[in-house]
Amino acid sequence: MKLYGYFRSSAAWRLRIALALKGAAYDNVFCHLRKGEQRDPAYLALNPQGLLPTLQLDDGTVLTQSLAILEWLEETHPEPAILPRTALARAAARAFALAIACEIHPAQNSGVLERLRTDAGFDQTRVTAWAARVIDEGLTACEALVRNRPGRFLFGDTPTIAEICLVPQLGNARRFGVDVTRFPRLLAAEAAAMELPAFVAATPQRQPDAE
Amino acid sequence: MKLYGYFRSSAAWRLRIALALKGAAYDNVFCHLRKGEQRDPAYLALNPQGLLPTLQLDDGTVLTQSLAILEWLEETHPEPAILPRTALARAAARAFALAIACEIHPAQNSGVLERLRTDAGFDQTRVTAWAARVIDEGLTACEALVRNRPGRFLFGDTPTIAEICLVPQLGNARRFGVDVTRFPRLLAAEAAAMELPAFVAATPQRQPDAE
Repeated sequence: MKLYGYFRSSAAWRLRIALALKGAAYDNVFCHLRKGEQRDPAYLALNPQGLLPTLQLDDGTVLTQSLAILEWLEETHPEPAILPRTALARAAARAFALAIACEIHPAQNSGVLERLRTDAGFDQTRVTAWAARVIDEGLTACEALVRNRPGRFLFGDTPTIAEICLVPQLGNARRFGVDVTRFPRLLAAEAAAMELPAFVAATPQRQPDAE
Repeated sequence: MKLYGYFRSSAAWRLRIALALKGAAYDNVFCHLRKGEQRDPAYLALNPQGLLPTLQLDDGTVLTQSLAILEWLEETHPEPAILPRTALARAAARAFALAIACEIHPAQNSGVLERLRTDAGFDQTRVTAWAARVIDEGLTACEALVRNRPGRFLFGDTPTIAEICLVPQLGNARRFGVDVTRFPRLLAAEAAAMELPAFVAATPQRQPDAE
């Protein structure tokens, strides 16, 4: 498999974690977002959305959208599981992941931030303030979703898609200057995750294309 | 079950379609977004994100995030299926649904549009132009994702989460004045879906709280 990614893409970061947890071998193909390589016609032919990540299988099949790829990985490489065992617990873990992937990440991702520059005339200070506020409000809701959940991880004794989405989002939060100490349950889950080699190896600064 | 929804919420619309397809009985609880009822403390206790929809089971269990609820429905009410049968086809259908739910919908949903009014000082004309552009670009990518797929529906002979997300998003597109005739494959799938009673019954204008 080939993973088209970028060290700082938090959606690619999710997949790096999951592929490492599953022990699935893959080759990296780097797509430099800042240089606009995601808009190259050759990349758009693979991924018409011009987004990262893309996972290309050895037979050429192309998979897009990180959460869809996580579900595919779970179905094709079931151990260790990244979803809880019961339907209700799976719904809760998926809801937490989607609270990040559908509510926080899109509103602070490069697409919307670029539109704020071009359509709204925001300078970098206002762009950063927008992103920080979106993340702060979103993580406040995420903390409320899991505040009373026991255990080392958010949904049981092992990491799930919840931590796979949370850890990169906390990375973005710090990058935009959000005070993450307001989210103790989230930080506890992150700390548990970061004891695992798969989470450590997936961090942006460990990637070959890191700047 | 109780579905907390609003006639115009496209995320609640997704669930109305799926519940009808599955033949799952539920009661409506209306939460008036324009009046801000999603920020009532009683509602926030159920759904800390203050978003629609919420599905509350008869034992009080609360499920949030429409795509997580769709997966739960598929696991607990498997027939008729709203996901294809093979892992690769499921990945493609989920990727299409997420291309709407993670890339289009959040950037044109009431949260971001309200921020554009308050943080960027946009008037209604600029808000509408922003939403229309986001939807137009997003649906252009969606059309490219499925342009060459055969069949009445996007992923086989029956509707899946792809149409469940597409039909409400096309509804939003028209509401914001997007020229949807540029998306013939999407419109063909919508037309096929709208021959089914579950899709007809779920439209906003058929809801008891429609204005």
